[in-house]
This record gives sequence, C-alpha cells and structure tokens, in this order.
Amino acid sequence: SPSQTQRVWVTHCQMSKACLESVHYPPSFFSLSSVTRLGMGFRPNGCLASPQETLMGKYGDNSKLIYELQDQGGELLALRYDLTVPFARCLAMNKITNIKRYHIAKVYRRDNPATTRGRYREFYQCDFDIAGQFDSMIPDAECLKIVHEILSDLQLGDFLIKVNDRRILNGVFAVCGVPESKFITTCSTVDKLDKMPWDDVRSEMVGEKGLSPEAADCIGEYVQLHGGLDLIEQLLQDPKLSQNKLAKEGLGDMKLLFEYLTLFGITGKISFDLSLARGLDYYTGVIFEAVLLQQENDHVEESVSVGSVAGGGRYDGLVGMFDPKGRKVPCVGVSIGIERIFSIMEQRVKASGEKVRTTETQVLVATPQKHLLGARLKLISELWDAGIKAEMLYKKDPKLLKQLQYCEDTGIPLVAIIGEQELTDGVVKLRVVTTREEVNIPREKLADEIRRRLEPCSLSVQSCLTL
Amino acid sequence: SPSQTQRVWVTHCQMSKACLESVHYPPSFFSLSSVTRLGMGFRPNGCLASPQETLMGKYGDNSKLIYELQDQGGELLALRYDLTVPFARCLAMNKITNIKRYHIAKVYRRDNPATTRGRYREFYQCDFDIAGQFDSMIPDAECLKIVHEILSDLQLGDFLIKVNDRRILNGVFAVCGVPESKFITTCSTVDKLDKMPWDDVRSEMVGEKGLSPEAADCIGEYVQLHGGLDLIEQLLQDPKLSQNKLAKEGLGDMKLLFEYLTLFGITGKISFDLSLARGLDYYTGVIFEAVLLQQENDHVEESVSVGSVAGGGRYDGLVGMFDPKGRKVPCVGVSIGIERIFSIMEQRVKASGEKVRTTETQVLVATPQKHLLGARLKLISELWDAGIKAEMLYKKDPKLLKQLQYCEDTGIPLVAIIGEQELTDGVVKLRVVTTREEVNIPREKLADEIRRRLEPCSLSVQSCLTL
Repeated sequence: SPSQTQRVWVTHCQMSKACLESVHYPPSFFSLSSVTRLGMGFRPNGCLASPQETLMGKYGDNSKLIYELQDQGGELLALRYDLTVPFARCLAMNKITNIKRYHIAKVYRRDNPATTRGRYREFYQCDFDIAGQFDSMIPDAECLKIVHEILSDLQLGDFLIKVNDRRILNGVFAVCGVPESKFITTCSTVDKLDKMPWDDVRSEMVGEKGLSPEAADCIGEYVQLHGGLDLIEQLLQDPKLSQNKLAKEGLGDMKLLFEYLTLFGITGKISFDLSLARGLDYYTGVIFEAVLLQQENDHVEESVSVGSVAGGGRYDGLVGMFDPKGRKVPCVGVSIGIERIFSIMEQRVKASGEKVRTTETQVLVATPQKHLLGARLKLISELWDAGIKAEMLYKKDPKLLKQLQYCEDTGIPLVAIIGEQELTDGVVKLRVVTTREEVNIPREKLADEIRRRLEPCSLSVQSCLTL
Repeated sequence: SPSQTQRVWVTHCQMSKACLESVHYPPSFFSLSSVTRLGMGFRPNGCLASPQETLMGKYGDNSKLIYELQDQGGELLALRYDLTVPFARCLAMNKITNIKRYHIAKVYRRDNPATTRGRYREFYQCDFDIAGQFDSMIPDAECLKIVHEILSDLQLGDFLIKVNDRRILNGVFAVCGVPESKFITTCSTVDKLDKMPWDDVRSEMVGEKGLSPEAADCIGEYVQLHGGLDLIEQLLQDPKLSQNKLAKEGLGDMKLLFEYLTLFGITGKISFDLSLARGLDYYTGVIFEAVLLQQENDHVEESVSVGSVAGGGRYDGLVGMFDPKGRKVPCVGVSIGIERIFSIMEQRVKASGEKVRTTETQVLVATPQKHLLGARLKLISELWDAGIKAEMLYKKDPKLLKQLQYCEDTGIPLVAIIGEQELTDGVVKLRVVTTREEVNIPREKLADEIRRRLEPCSLSVQSCLTL
C-alpha cells in the first residue's frame, strides 16, 4: 500500500532531534506493556485498588471501550487504552521523579471504526512527555517546539497550534459566577466552540448545563478571544480577571510561555485561544492543540475533516493518583495524531497519483543471458557486504526485460547488469532506470559509484577529496 | 536501563540491507494486528472455521498458552502467539502469492516467565519471510545470508548455523523402517540431540516412541553426522538413501543450497547437521538454526545458556490451510531470537561494567552566569533547526558545574557554553566533556563544527572540500 513508506518515515520523524529518551519498559511492568493489570494500583505494599480506581477510573465513561482479557485464573488484565495513564503509573510505581521520553506504540479501543475519521480499534499513538519539577514553562515550551518541528517537517501544509490554560478557563468561570462544581461540565461545553457557533454553545450552557444567562454571556466575552502577547497583556489588565488568583497565575505563565516561544522562533504558528478546552479531565495547566488549516482535497470526492493532528498539556496530578502516598510528579506532554496524519498523507498520495515506493532498494542485480545465476549471487553478495541495498529476481535465468520491468514496477533506480562480456572485462554495466543511460563501471568501484549517485553525503571524506 | 541502546540498535540492525519490504498491515486485518480473530478462517465466503481449525489448531498443545480476550459480545479474539501464522493467514485471505517482508513486533504467551531463559509473557519477535513460487533454494539461501549478516554485525561472538531438511530426515526414517505415522514423533525425539547424548535419545525412541532397536540404530548412523558439501556428496551415494525419493530430493536441494551459500561467502559458519529437527510441525523442506558457540560469561555468576538465537525453514503448506480452496503459497523464513539476544547483550554490558548511553544527545547547551536563559533557548533552537541533537537543563539559572555533571552522567560528549563574554564576541565556547579542552567557535559555524567532530561522514561535499 502506498502508505507504507510514509508510515515508516513519520514514526521516525525528527523526534530524535529533541534528544528524547526512548524507554523500553521491561516486560515485568505490565502497566507498560500492551497488557495492563486491572486493579493493581499499589504493587509495592500489596494493597489492591479496584479496577475502577486505577485504569478504568481514569477514563470515565470511556472505560466501556477497554478491551479486557478473559479471566483465565491469573490476574485481571486489559489492553492499554492510551500511553499516558500507563506512563503515569510507571512513574508512580517506580518512584521516578524526573524523566523525558517518547513512546510510539499501539493502543486498543472498542469503538466502532469510522475510518474516514481515523479512529481504529487498534492504532498507533505517538507521545512525548517531560516529567519532573522544573522551572516554569520551559519544558512546556519544548513540547510546543517539538510539535511545531514535526508538523513543519511533515509538510502537511499550514497549521495552527492553539494554546490555553485550565487555570485561565477556571478563572473565567469563577469571575463569571459559575459554581466550582460546574467547572468541568462548563469546560466541555466551551470545548465545542471549534465545531459549533457561540450561540449554540451558549444555548447548551444555559439549557443543558444550568448556567445563568448572565454567566453564559460573561463567559462569551472571554472565550471568543484569541491572539498573542497583546491579548495576554490585555487580559492581565482585565478588571475581573485580575481579581482572580488562578487566572493571574495562568496568564502570567502564558506570558512566560510566549516569551520562550518567541526565542524558539515559532510564535507565527501559535495562537492563545480562550475557546480551547480539551476533553481530558487530568489537565491542570497549559493545554494545546494543533490543527491543519488547509486540506488540498480538490481532487478528492469526500472532503476529510480530521480535526486536530496533535494535542497535549500539563497534567500535574495524574502520577499522584497511582501513588499510595499521593506523591505528585508534574508532567507535561503531547500526543501526535499519527493515524490522522497517515489518513491525510494517504489521501494526498492517492489524489496526486504519485507512486510511492515501499522499499528502499537501490539497485537490482541483473543478468542478460542464461547460466549466470552464480555471477549474480556473487555480485549481489559483494554489494550487500558493502552496505548497498540490492535485490535480484529469484530465478535462475530471468529475461532482462522482466528484470528491467521489475525495477520500473517497484521504483528501483539503478540496475547492475553483469553479462558474459562484463565478466570478461571485469566491469559491471550500471543502468539508470528512468533515463536508460548505461555506463561501464570497474567492478571494485561499483559500490562507491552507486553511493555517489544515491547517497552523496555518505561518502567518506577520502572519497570526497578524490572527486 | 543499559539495555535500551542495544535494544533500539538490534531492532534496526542490518535487515534493511537485504531490501525487505516492511508491511504495515492495515488495521482491518485483525489477523495481523496483535489481536487475532478466533475462528474466522475463511472471511471472503463467510464460512466460519472453528477456533481449533485456525489459530489454535496451528499450535497444538501450545494453544493453552494463548491470551484470549473476553467475550464482550463481538467477535472472539485473541492476542497473536507468533508472527508466522498471522502472516500465512494474511496471504491466504488477500490472495497474495508473492511477497517478502520483515516484521518486528510483540507476541503474547501465557507461559510463566523463566527470565534467565529469556521467555517472557510479552516479547518481541523479529521475522523475515519470502513467500512465492521461485526457483529452488534461492530465497532459502538469502534467508541464511541474512541470518549470517545479522549475527556477524551484532558481534555476539562465534556462531554456527545448522542446516537440515525435513525431506532428508523423513527419508532417513523411511529407509530405517519407521512407519510414516511415527515420523513426527520420531522427529521430535531426534530434535533433543542438541541437549541429550545419543544413548538417551535412542532410549526414548525405543522405550517411549515404540521404535524397534534396529530402526533406532539405523537412524543413529545418520543423525549423528554433520559436515559440508563432502557429506552431502557422500549421502547422495549412500546405498539406502539413494533409493528414497524424498531423501534424494532433499539432498539435491541441500547441494544446491551449499553452492549458493559458497557464492555468498558464508559456508564457514554453516554446518549440514542431520540431528537438527526443529520443533514446529509446519516445516516442509529446509530447516536451520543458529547457535552461539561461546559465552563470555566468566564474570557472570550464573552461566546463561540461551539456546538458539535464530531459527527457521521452509513451510510450503501453511498458507493453504487458511485458504478455502487450499491454494498453496510456498514460504521460507527465519525468526531472529531478539529477546534472547537482548539477554546476552545485557549480561555482557553488566559484566564489562561498560556504561551505555540511553540517548543520542550530541551537545548540552549551557550558560555559566545568571539571567541567560533567553540566550540558551535561542541557541538551542538554532542547533535544533540545524539538525543537531541538543539538550539543556530546564532551569532558569543552573550552575555550570551541575550542567557539566549532567553531561558526565548521561554521556553527552560536548557542551556549548554561552556566557556574557561569548555573547559579546559572537562565539560559543565548545567544550569536550572527556578531555575538558575548550575552544571558541564562531556562532554561525557551531553546527558544522559539532558535526565535524561527531558525524564526519554527514558533511556535505562542499564542507569536505573546504576542510
């Protein structure tokens, strides 16, 4: 399938530039394997927490969507639903106070796949998290830098990263007279502003959530705002908000964040957007979400709106929920929506009619006459030993035309042809598939010549100097 | 943990040189996800095969060891036990007749982990398979070339790849008067010759498996033999075996294989060993197993015998078992024992006291005075944008000593120090952590200088020429 190359590339994209620690969790930590222990919240002291308190408690209503393994007389187990809860649990169980890592792996959910929306029953998540007590907003800024870097390098088109803060939102609710017990439910209504107009959101607030019309209007004055440092300064001066401790804290940190993002050179794609709420309960501070602004889908019949392509935030209380003493480890992280990005890339490839290779083969070793299998095996072995990615047909006497056709079908750029004449002359005829030009190369120089044409940067300094 | 670097490296080792196609199976193919459909053998015509016939039937007694998912009202599902059966099923269900791929992924088994023997409940398997009707032994030879390449590059020490053929074994049994109904059970007793002396194996044949003493002795004349082309020639002349069609076929192919392996230059590590039987029923032709010959475990208290580190063979009948019409697709493949290799590497690292890095960070960006966080953020951003793997401490005013200590602790080789003086002069002080030497580099040349020191081969030809 055309998506294979992109999939491999995306999963290895630029995350290494940010120097992440890739953690391979030892199999004994079930909470980090795909299989999660249900109900074993506090392993060191043997105190069992019920399933509701651990894995399933974190997902609320979503807990119906967890794949449980059959009770086969051992422990109660389930397949992990995301990568964040297992991560938080690993930190708590191992008393880790300071770590940053990326994790690209599959997660398992029981929702019905609505494939055009990119939600499968088993799909990849791609997370990066920084855990630990650090100076304010520095790791948060790094998460945003990484999202910006990844989305830029993937060349998906223009994108926007919306940023907000739970403290600012809660501050707004407070100054607008919303009772604290309704903060979470109000938040989830505000979250719908990216899909519904304000009037509909207001109606839900008043009609379904029981807010007073005044409270709703007050909220409406704030949550429709978006901007940059100017907006932050403006809100810091706001008569209502400046009375609220939480809002001031959030706004102060937002200002600091924007200063760091300016130094990182990425504020062009950042928007401080008060309508951003994010669905998950466990966020405690900064929250953010990246969306693509343009879909090049003129040729595609069905316009695909795939929502956000990355999201995350700060969640300072989650690790403590898995610790018997409630010891907290502040965390901030981001999840890249890999499967959604795959959908988009696949659509584009299909629309463009571009042919995408599924292998990285550099050269096909071919023989034009019969009884030359031995010569082919020997030559391909030399190329393999020299680190060249080479293939050959598994036939004793293949026709040259078939071998050339194979290259065209699979996108192999070069053919190393060795026939009776070439064997006599100690050369190999190197043919460029697209242009059909051929040139004889001394056999011992073949690997270097292939590299010169396909990987110029890999040449040793020595070879460079002799060019 | 010290194993992380090796784990990452091993999973990416040299398999790409053999130009494999990495298949990411679309999620709709449950048989290829970690979650396997139980009992859905024939999807196209809606004919349901019972669980025994599909997944569980292939594993015999081992089917008790499969993790089943709870019956939650949908399909009956289980976690995959290996990568080969799902592969065969995918080919059958999609009518694929011709593919080669590698697959590195986790499999799930319920056996109790005996960790020193490297058998976990959830562990990686690393498979390479070539499926399709091709000229005899060419793909089989390539599988062996790959095993040889991987084991050589991993530098685990001396190794041996034993090769045999089920047809030769069955031929031996036939000419020794073993009834065909006892071929499989005799085979599994022969398989124990790598762990038990011949006398014990013979006793089991006669005492437990019901073979006549004459049959056992006859078998003993053959299965204790091992060698190279000479032995193959000798057996081709053997009066008993040359009467047996199956044995002649197997020996003929073994001769062909050795000719190809000679052209591949690897026969030094290959042994035609008639005692090799391999446990799995589905092998139909060539079988092979790689073992390490030496364990450097003088410093380790517990001597770890980890058995084979790779194994495989030809299995021409498996795909047909998942096809309603029984259409066959010949396959040959190998599984690299990644977890066992991890165990060995971990042991060695521990024994050597060598410190292994868990990140690839090239440089730490550090500031020696206070109030320079902004300068640090700006510089690290420049390095990241230039593709350099850089880190910094998440502190506003970290002490220089702490920053240097962090480099020593985590193995970061270089420090880019930017203080007030360096800012004024437009330079960065580059410090080598191990030698403590420091040199001022013009800021705009910093990325290239870091690359020159750490990745000389990545320099553009341009830079090479200016050196």
